[in-house]
Amino acid sequence: MTTKKVAVILSGCGVYDGAEIHESVITLLRLDQRGAKVQCFAPDIAQLHVINHLTGEPMPESRNVLVESARIARGEIKDIREAKVEDFDALIIPGGFGAAKNLSSFATDGAACSVQADVLSLAEAFAEAGKPIGLMCISPAIAAKIYGPGVICTIGTDADTAAAVTKMGGTHQECEVSEIVEDKARKLVSTPAYMLAKSISEAASGINKMVDRVLELTQKN
Amino acid sequence: MTTKKVAVILSGCGVYDGAEIHESVITLLRLDQRGAKVQCFAPDIAQLHVINHLTGEPMPESRNVLVESARIARGEIKDIREAKVEDFDALIIPGGFGAAKNLSSFATDGAACSVQADVLSLAEAFAEAGKPIGLMCISPAIAAKIYGPGVICTIGTDADTAAAVTKMGGTHQECEVSEIVEDKARKLVSTPAYMLAKSISEAASGINKMVDRVLELTQKN
Repeated sequence: MTTKKVAVILSGCGVYDGAEIHESVITLLRLDQRGAKVQCFAPDIAQLHVINHLTGEPMPESRNVLVESARIARGEIKDIREAKVEDFDALIIPGGFGAAKNLSSFATDGAACSVQADVLSLAEAFAEAGKPIGLMCISPAIAAKIYGPGVICTIGTDADTAAAVTKMGGTHQECEVSEIVEDKARKLVSTPAYMLAKSISEAASGINKMVDRVLELTQKN
Repeated sequence: MTTKKVAVILSGCGVYDGAEIHESVITLLRLDQRGAKVQCFAPDIAQLHVINHLTGEPMPESRNVLVESARIARGEIKDIREAKVEDFDALIIPGGFGAAKNLSSFATDGAACSVQADVLSLAEAFAEAGKPIGLMCISPAIAAKIYGPGVICTIGTDADTAAAVTKMGGTHQECEVSEIVEDKARKLVSTPAYMLAKSISEAASGINKMVDRVLELTQKN
């Protein structure tokens, strides 16, 4: 078996304004345990805002998505503009509000959202190359932007979020936290993670399954 | 089996100025997978400094240890002054420079370091109650402060750090990344984690073993 190379896009460091930390670390751990080689990327842009995770209130300061994402990656991270699809076999985007606030404007614009330009073009390149993508939690909200109408994904069971996904042209499928939804034609694998998880091990159950399936799909390229 | 309750002390959010994120999340995941109930705590104090994890350089800003630790805990964290030893069966302190910069002054003062007062009194209370403590990475540097001379622990194989531990009265034992060192008399379990780990799964191998052993030791209370 050749070593699979996986790009992971982080969106900051913390569930309320960045990448969900548990989801990100569980993803990195499973990929490493399965022998994949990982490179983390993030956009070099300001966060939408900074949230005090103790109180839930905004803080009067500014943080950079790439710099904060580097905390999760222990410094081993690159500007997403350096990412080349030909260097990787698959792409995974953890959730957290950062996916909806920094990688896209889904948190504020809902179905009318846009996706950060470099994130969108990289994800589109994976889709066009027939390379698998793994999404989780709220990050499947951008699936219809990447793949266009008809793409099948899950964001769990939340009716409002599911309605927004549907409005964007996605086909939302309800899914248990320990399960995955696969769009076989597009090689897109998604799992609800903390959209539904009541504990870190519940989140891990679905994420591990998603990572495993993404790596399986790279075999078929 | 009754549910075991474990207190986890975080020291910020990021390896260079706070709690090591991978170590913290792996600890929380393993505890949850083993059915333990976890409460995170951190001191409500300013970090020693803020490090840009992309460049390794200090940043001209100030962050609070409790507020930043809340990112790892998804908001479910309390001021360490609220922690009562009688509410818990065990204590675990992940590593990262935060353990040596915020929970203690080991990073700047070496063997002459002091431990943050609330962290020290809580850890001492666990030791005095005969309740197990788990340490990893650089956090065993404070073991001699908690238990006094003769305590057996590991910080991996780094000669300088081991020398400082010895100077403080600790008995340092070399240890592979996938293994643990146990001071049976004191119920202290330590593992090198990122003092030695070259990958996240290497770190997890020792941390999982440490968590499992700490939980086993709670059975014997």
